[in-house]
Amino acid sequence: MPLSELQVVPHLKTALKGPLQHLENHLLAKQTDIEWWFRQQWQQTPAPFYSSVDLRNAGFKLAPVDTNLFPAGFNNLNSAFFPLCVQAAHAAVERTKITAARLLIIPENHTRNLSYWESVATLQTILQKTGLEVRIGSMLADLDTPQEIVLPSGQQVLLEPIIRHQHCIGLQDFTPCLVLLNNDLSSGHPTLLDNLHQDIVPPLHSGWYARLKSEHFTYYRQVAKEFSAQIEIDPWLIEPLFRNCGKLDFMKKTGYECLADNVDALLQAIQHKYTEYNVPHKPFVIVKADQGTYGMGVMTIHDPEEILALNRKQRTRMSTSKEGQTIQKVILQEGVYTFETWENESVAEPVVYMIDHFVVGGFYRVHTEKGVNENLNAPGMHFEPLAFENSCMAPNCTMAPDALPNRFYAYGVIARLASLAAAREISAQV
Amino acid sequence: MPLSELQVVPHLKTALKGPLQHLENHLLAKQTDIEWWFRQQWQQTPAPFYSSVDLRNAGFKLAPVDTNLFPAGFNNLNSAFFPLCVQAAHAAVERTKITAARLLIIPENHTRNLSYWESVATLQTILQKTGLEVRIGSMLADLDTPQEIVLPSGQQVLLEPIIRHQHCIGLQDFTPCLVLLNNDLSSGHPTLLDNLHQDIVPPLHSGWYARLKSEHFTYYRQVAKEFSAQIEIDPWLIEPLFRNCGKLDFMKKTGYECLADNVDALLQAIQHKYTEYNVPHKPFVIVKADQGTYGMGVMTIHDPEEILALNRKQRTRMSTSKEGQTIQKVILQEGVYTFETWENESVAEPVVYMIDHFVVGGFYRVHTEKGVNENLNAPGMHFEPLAFENSCMAPNCTMAPDALPNRFYAYGVIARLASLAAAREISAQV
Repeated sequence: MPLSELQVVPHLKTALKGPLQHLENHLLAKQTDIEWWFRQQWQQTPAPFYSSVDLRNAGFKLAPVDTNLFPAGFNNLNSAFFPLCVQAAHAAVERTKITAARLLIIPENHTRNLSYWESVATLQTILQKTGLEVRIGSMLADLDTPQEIVLPSGQQVLLEPIIRHQHCIGLQDFTPCLVLLNNDLSSGHPTLLDNLHQDIVPPLHSGWYARLKSEHFTYYRQVAKEFSAQIEIDPWLIEPLFRNCGKLDFMKKTGYECLADNVDALLQAIQHKYTEYNVPHKPFVIVKADQGTYGMGVMTIHDPEEILALNRKQRTRMSTSKEGQTIQKVILQEGVYTFETWENESVAEPVVYMIDHFVVGGFYRVHTEKGVNENLNAPGMHFEPLAFENSCMAPNCTMAPDALPNRFYAYGVIARLASLAAAREISAQV
Repeated sequence: MPLSELQVVPHLKTALKGPLQHLENHLLAKQTDIEWWFRQQWQQTPAPFYSSVDLRNAGFKLAPVDTNLFPAGFNNLNSAFFPLCVQAAHAAVERTKITAARLLIIPENHTRNLSYWESVATLQTILQKTGLEVRIGSMLADLDTPQEIVLPSGQQVLLEPIIRHQHCIGLQDFTPCLVLLNNDLSSGHPTLLDNLHQDIVPPLHSGWYARLKSEHFTYYRQVAKEFSAQIEIDPWLIEPLFRNCGKLDFMKKTGYECLADNVDALLQAIQHKYTEYNVPHKPFVIVKADQGTYGMGVMTIHDPEEILALNRKQRTRMSTSKEGQTIQKVILQEGVYTFETWENESVAEPVVYMIDHFVVGGFYRVHTEKGVNENLNAPGMHFEPLAFENSCMAPNCTMAPDALPNRFYAYGVIARLASLAAAREISAQV
């Protein structure tokens, strides 16, 4: 039986209940303030059309480590909450383009990942249920005729070549009113999508060619600061510290000193907070490409010395990201331990999904071969998806702060903060 | 085991599949047009905060017979779709008063109906999950101190006396930003709520003291006409014909001729449509109070002669409605047969719930002692609630037109038409 059918959730394994109870208690007690605050925020800055946020739950802190504006993985959500996705998609379409009748999804180009296509098929179905006519247009250069992909679930997707005519794109016999990107544009700004008269969501400039993780986390820092002031907590409990380094070349070993210095400073800052909260663990830093996704070009560092000792293989791995882009900038992010474990051994990391500003569900990446301090979204990584059992919208004050509906509520709050940071980031660039 | 736990649905018992297939096929085939149309409509006229719509499914036609702007029965919905209610309530609060933090529910005054209080408790919980502080203020004149009602489900509600101070109402230590009426104001405009500075939803003038069913169905007729033109069907398939009579006195027998004439004209009009569609059943008319609710003052008429032959008991029953209001105006509505039956004998009538413009669920009133042509919402009526098994938002074109998700979709479409008619009715009165 696949994990997702078991409908159980990981156990939070940590002796450090103090600060977490503090955090979760606060989120529950301040629910009115929190929801009120979010309502004002979303009015000021419209939420992204959709997003997913990777969280790490160390027990003593709960923080986002990555925000994806072109989410995949819709197939991993609990199908019981499918109507929630449809309802939220209704709201997203109303907010984006209320007159839309036809929508074109532009997916990633890697056609061999069947799990990705299961997600696209699920997304297509969700959007169809809002009454839109939804088709899939591929940017694959060598796609001349429609290609059908039949999936293990029984779903199927039809990839059709995109045809551009002056300022409009479409398919054979199909001119969309709205274009939905599910391609993160890692390989750059596609001229095919330049100067279109059709609305594109998320906007082109939210593609990875234009975004920096360090910029996103700069916005997140500000959001976390405002939110923490609102509910009176230390922002560190919900935010990973970070620093960034530009002009780095792993192969030529240039920029290494700056990197080592920054790692050192960040490790000290983390240790400072660990001491403050009596956290008995060893601080660590995650070094990752400042642009891009798919967990490529990521490493875990416990000591600045490790930077200087990188061997050729490690340096090669760090120097290119998705679709062969060279890594020149990195973000150094406070490593947040994952103390959620599945069946007492596998490490589990929650991923939360939003459509518009509604939290529609999530799942755990359950990984049997990774440690508590490693990146769980790594190349070649195998994980089992474990769908959230409950919705993230039904906290229950009569239950313990770490009871499931309350833990999921906490996830939903932190994920929404990351989505809000992304919303501000995108709207600032217009 | 209560019906609601069985999660099965009534069987549609009718030989007349022709026009229904026509209707349901159309709703499925025209889904894109329908949803597009609704999106434009809701932008022009905001949906009521919440509503419930009683439908009758005759197989050959599917029509609303009553639209409630102060819905009870939230406790009868499928608890699996509770998160849908919360999400929709978020949207409703955002649209109504985005800065609201505290909400006061004003319920009905009949404190003995525990089933009603289960609904109020459920509604309170739904609204609390949106992060609002929600309390219940009673207009009961003799309530001096808070009264707690413990319910069979284990839920409880606390009724508190409303305190008015100048242009604000509240409770002890509680000043709401938003007042939600769950009292249909059958007994008139309450001076307690006059000229408040706080926002009241639905607005006071949507109370039964100010509404006429005939006016609602006049708006519905127009909505059905526009919608039917959009999807190219005969509006009669989704609309009950009606006429109204004013200045009637059942006790003094004045206005009877007008009533009998109108019944006669309406029966002929129905027969005309029955002939057109080869419906082999006998037309009937429902006579009900033009104002008010709770199915009081309702009768089924097959022949104008029956009007003149009413005995004293029947006339007395028709002359007063809820809270002792005298009935002077009636609406004559085309009777729509209910051909949905439960376990081959009990009659079942769907009730659909909306929060904002989102269909959040519904249930069947399953009645073991009523006929296919009787009003199922009658005084002293006992029904078993049977929650809808699926959401109303996930039609599936690969299934038969009368498969459950598609039947529920059809219910949701017709219920939204009734809600739209109510929205236009309310906004026209401002």
